[in-house]
Amino acid sequence: MNSQINRENKNIITMLTISIRGDKMPSSPIRKLVPYSEEAKSRGIKVYHLNIGQPDIKTPEVALAAAKNADLKVIEYSHSAGIESYRRKLAKYYQNIGIDIDHNNLLVTTGGSEAITFAFLSCFNPGDEVIIPEPFYANYNGFAIAAGVNVKPIESFIEDGFALPPIEKFEDLITDKTKGIVICNPNNPTGYLYSEDELNSLRELVIKHDLYLFSDEVYREFCYDGHEHISVMHLKGIENNVVMFDSVSKRYSECGVRIGALVTKNSEVLNTALKFAQARLSPPTFGQIIAEASLDTPKSYFDEVQKEYISRRDFLVAGLNKIPGVYSPKPKGAFYTVAKLPVDDSDKFCQWILSEFDYEGQTVMMAPASGFYSTPGRGKDEVRIAYVLKKEDLAKALIVLEKALEAYPGRVGA
Amino acid sequence: MNSQINRENKNIITMLTISIRGDKMPSSPIRKLVPYSEEAKSRGIKVYHLNIGQPDIKTPEVALAAAKNADLKVIEYSHSAGIESYRRKLAKYYQNIGIDIDHNNLLVTTGGSEAITFAFLSCFNPGDEVIIPEPFYANYNGFAIAAGVNVKPIESFIEDGFALPPIEKFEDLITDKTKGIVICNPNNPTGYLYSEDELNSLRELVIKHDLYLFSDEVYREFCYDGHEHISVMHLKGIENNVVMFDSVSKRYSECGVRIGALVTKNSEVLNTALKFAQARLSPPTFGQIIAEASLDTPKSYFDEVQKEYISRRDFLVAGLNKIPGVYSPKPKGAFYTVAKLPVDDSDKFCQWILSEFDYEGQTVMMAPASGFYSTPGRGKDEVRIAYVLKKEDLAKALIVLEKALEAYPGRVGA
Repeated sequence: MNSQINRENKNIITMLTISIRGDKMPSSPIRKLVPYSEEAKSRGIKVYHLNIGQPDIKTPEVALAAAKNADLKVIEYSHSAGIESYRRKLAKYYQNIGIDIDHNNLLVTTGGSEAITFAFLSCFNPGDEVIIPEPFYANYNGFAIAAGVNVKPIESFIEDGFALPPIEKFEDLITDKTKGIVICNPNNPTGYLYSEDELNSLRELVIKHDLYLFSDEVYREFCYDGHEHISVMHLKGIENNVVMFDSVSKRYSECGVRIGALVTKNSEVLNTALKFAQARLSPPTFGQIIAEASLDTPKSYFDEVQKEYISRRDFLVAGLNKIPGVYSPKPKGAFYTVAKLPVDDSDKFCQWILSEFDYEGQTVMMAPASGFYSTPGRGKDEVRIAYVLKKEDLAKALIVLEKALEAYPGRVGA
Repeated sequence: MNSQINRENKNIITMLTISIRGDKMPSSPIRKLVPYSEEAKSRGIKVYHLNIGQPDIKTPEVALAAAKNADLKVIEYSHSAGIESYRRKLAKYYQNIGIDIDHNNLLVTTGGSEAITFAFLSCFNPGDEVIIPEPFYANYNGFAIAAGVNVKPIESFIEDGFALPPIEKFEDLITDKTKGIVICNPNNPTGYLYSEDELNSLRELVIKHDLYLFSDEVYREFCYDGHEHISVMHLKGIENNVVMFDSVSKRYSECGVRIGALVTKNSEVLNTALKFAQARLSPPTFGQIIAEASLDTPKSYFDEVQKEYISRRDFLVAGLNKIPGVYSPKPKGAFYTVAKLPVDDSDKFCQWILSEFDYEGQTVMMAPASGFYSTPGRGKDEVRIAYVLKKEDLAKALIVLEKALEAYPGRVGA
């Protein structure tokens, strides 16, 4: 580099500011404790990661083989909407689960996250309101802040197993700024699976008030105890209102490929989202190759995975409910549960257990539930636990949690 | 799926609207003609793609091998800021080109696109203004619209080879809403390489008005004729003002991996960007593995690539200037040139050449320059041409272009 570049190093006082939305942007409740867990690990402590939906389930062989066998000479951009062969095969996957679309009704996105961002940018003006049953996936807050949208939470409660609040509660929140409702089904963080009646109530509400209905269905394959998944794409007469978010991350345990989808029969929404997609050029090429191959995953893989999750859930929930002062409902889907703990403040507790506690050289990382609520003060005695580890690790984590609750200075209640 | 779902199919009239920013969002000038080129191909016509910065240069062997040899059992999320080993190695790459940073001064992003989006979201409030010399990379418009930022273009001209406009022109545009300046160096679409004097002028301006200076340097390796690249990260005394965008897409001809970086010594900006990064979880894992391996690409690869591009540029620019009525400056960097054509409207011409013209079964796809300007009416007689094809293809494309200009009904001038 040229040495004549101006090298004066005055101390310049700048007034540069961070944006208001940047300030408002929350740290991820799932990831914000990472420095404490790294610090614990550096002290030689074994940390059980129940904080994040990163399963230990093996990615399907067909997916891993596709990456190895991709014989590319140049790793090129794909079409902004995704590789056409993948879009066509993905459309067939939806057709097979009774969703009547073709490849022109979907856009391949960089993870489900990008699908949500594109939908919010395409459908909402800054200042518009979106109703979301809480607790909800914490990053909805982030996507809403990025898009300037105001989240209006509607409370659901652990005592009801986090069922959909009565429709009147939604009606109470609707203003002339309300443009949509977001649900996550099966739900992250609660594991709640919406019933047909609940979805039909939402359908009526959406028709009555002419709202968008966004549904995050990335845990579709994780429904237990014989319950069937009903997609918002199955609801008739609101095809124009419905936008579905999807992702291959959880379905095939390939979170790192970053491939999702935005699915809608509303062509205006899709065409608008495509303009945002063109600006970012294309979703990851390797991810798409892997995702396309993943569609050939044999049914036996899902049967095994489902058996594994059911057994983990049953084990975890039973174990949690045996710990004095702890309560967890039994979720019907996904691989999370929200548990109530006898603590003053779960943010403090989750930090304390990493930084000041260990039991036989082990500790547990959980996601404080406050980050999944937007009503101030809610979730302070709850945590989200992901049952993404094998049972023997869950067993050890439960022991650590029990011992920690006994030792925690901020313990409350009986 | 359950057959009792409400299947009434009333014709519901909805008032659902698309957002204002969604309406404002431009179609990509690089990609909007894709349907016409697909249609031409379906008629059996060979289309030379000079519209997009998708080089035909082979991805380095070390990169392709890394994908094949990645022995993953589970394709997991990475850290939101990127895989640490990659961040450390990437920091070394910057150190080697005189940029004094470490791995804590950078964030791995999903392409350069995401770095720009995160920076705009982190630094700007809706309604803030950013000055960008035009013509500029068209997608800056898209990122600005998504963030609610107003682009104030400052005109540069083909007659001056698209040099940086005089600093007084910047001063004229600065208001109390002005928060930053964006440059692209070497420039897309013009291939212009900023001089040390120009960068020092920007440095003074940034100090005087306390502005952010964003610099897109994804074509750093493509500087010709002995000219050295000077990064904004080399400028002293404005470390807090500077945010650099980078990408491996062009450097290693691996556009599809979607790996970029946001680099800044301003820790407030970096920490804010990290919150947006956490919301989208992580950049693509395979892309990061490939990008990390790419850092071992031997120097001989770049020497060959550079030789190839110089030879293509010289060939293309000479060929363009031989066509009656056509003018192209000789760019010092990147792999684009903006050429002036004797046409009424380059949008119409670029569509016409795909849909109504062929020469011996061949045609050419170019990017109309209007999309790279934000001043209305500018660029209507210009196109961006990417010299991303080998010389024999460029030769054929030049013949097609010459013949097309002879036949085009909207030809103007001599």
